[in-house]
Amino acid sequence: MQFNEYYHERTGLTVGVNKILFSEQTPYQKVEVFETDTWGNMMTIDGMVMLSEKDEFVYHEMLTHVGMFAHPDPRRVLIIGGGDGGTAREVLRHPSVEQVDMVEIDEAVVRAAKQFLPNVGAFDDPRLSVLYEDGIRFVEKVDHPYDVIIIDGSDPVGPAADLFSETFYHRCRKALSENGVLTAQTESPWVPSYHSAIHNLFATLDNTFRISEMYLAFIPLYPAGMWSLAFASQGIHPHDPDVMKRVSEGTRRMDSALQYYNEEIHRGAFALPGFVKDMLR
Amino acid sequence: MQFNEYYHERTGLTVGVNKILFSEQTPYQKVEVFETDTWGNMMTIDGMVMLSEKDEFVYHEMLTHVGMFAHPDPRRVLIIGGGDGGTAREVLRHPSVEQVDMVEIDEAVVRAAKQFLPNVGAFDDPRLSVLYEDGIRFVEKVDHPYDVIIIDGSDPVGPAADLFSETFYHRCRKALSENGVLTAQTESPWVPSYHSAIHNLFATLDNTFRISEMYLAFIPLYPAGMWSLAFASQGIHPHDPDVMKRVSEGTRRMDSALQYYNEEIHRGAFALPGFVKDMLR
Repeated sequence: MQFNEYYHERTGLTVGVNKILFSEQTPYQKVEVFETDTWGNMMTIDGMVMLSEKDEFVYHEMLTHVGMFAHPDPRRVLIIGGGDGGTAREVLRHPSVEQVDMVEIDEAVVRAAKQFLPNVGAFDDPRLSVLYEDGIRFVEKVDHPYDVIIIDGSDPVGPAADLFSETFYHRCRKALSENGVLTAQTESPWVPSYHSAIHNLFATLDNTFRISEMYLAFIPLYPAGMWSLAFASQGIHPHDPDVMKRVSEGTRRMDSALQYYNEEIHRGAFALPGFVKDMLR
Repeated sequence: MQFNEYYHERTGLTVGVNKILFSEQTPYQKVEVFETDTWGNMMTIDGMVMLSEKDEFVYHEMLTHVGMFAHPDPRRVLIIGGGDGGTAREVLRHPSVEQVDMVEIDEAVVRAAKQFLPNVGAFDDPRLSVLYEDGIRFVEKVDHPYDVIIIDGSDPVGPAADLFSETFYHRCRKALSENGVLTAQTESPWVPSYHSAIHNLFATLDNTFRISEMYLAFIPLYPAGMWSLAFASQGIHPHDPDVMKRVSEGTRRMDSALQYYNEEIHRGAFALPGFVKDMLR
């Protein structure tokens, strides 16, 4: 059996599947887990690959550490989405962290991940609280601000569409502490149907935060293998000397746990090809 | 109709095809050109995508300019392979260039490219000579050395396998002038069956040249969307201040012609993820 995901007319990814381990139409979306021939177990939402056991390290390391090291002392972290638990796992590697609130709209994602992707999530860490709520509403009523907010939602169709809205990012800014940092997944620049969503999202970040930058990662099971992410803050730049010092020391300390992220990647990931820069203009 | 290329068991790329424009079993390989639904015309060799009209700029800009700008005054350039003409096109953008020898083993590649990828190659430039010869033998008998050698071969199976051998790179080093620079395409780090070829090739470069470095590019129609390339020289490092000055000035001059390569990419492409560094150890 083959799993297919098309991202541009009839262009896409095809993956060999041995069997379907989980398939549930929830109130929000269709959540599935497949046993693949070579990527371990793979979760999809509405037919779009979210992660596999063998490639998830790229997405989770890149979504997490770029922002976490940028903050001088991240204690309180909010994850919007992230139901598989991989982002929480990477956040919890940072010893300063005291509290992680993960706001996942769909409990089925967490249930499927705990059962079929048991090595991905860090659900047993006492610093983690999992809340089954709508992230967009959650950020409206935050009274104790967060040091880092990570937007780990799915694609801008279905329940995650509002995670690309101006209102949402305004609320996020207000939910951040003074030195607060935000990172988000922002789709593939190679997918024409997402060009305007990407352009608009970065225009929103640019209007909402003093600093906003796109960075990139190689993710083999995501459309075209190229994924963009966003960094935003009210003052900290990801390449400030203080940040680079923390990256250098922190990556040395975490070394054996990291398979993708490192000091050179923290810098190099922000280099954007010409066609991507044009898209942001 | 769908074109499929599998790079890891049953994982791979699938592309919608309207019709087959060219299909020929040559003495060396099977050369095909497809009209695709969204990538323009696409050439494959032995079932592996070489280029499409819409994504070829990434591969050709990255294979060419990283080495061309590293050399202080590239006049004589040798391209091994490169029958579609895209690498020659990028080389010929450098005003110092006086002579480009393109050594392509298979005339069918050039014939198919001229007919079905007419905007890719720069075959009419009088500085370009196309020679239908075996590149491995050609580099043995070079008596007038080249400033830049670019290895633009297909994958290390079939006629291009020897382009990954130690003998070949020793000959290339001898065929280079004193400040000579070499670049090569070196497969995807995400494809397990190429891990040992990549490891061995970079070990060979390391033994053969004083400086050798891997760099990366996002190529949507190549396996997993992540492609590695090699830079090698007897003294010039790609990030030397002189080189970066030439990159800065040259990319400004070429600006409108470049869709991927720029100054930040020239630097950032050399940042390697941990799992890729491990592969090179």
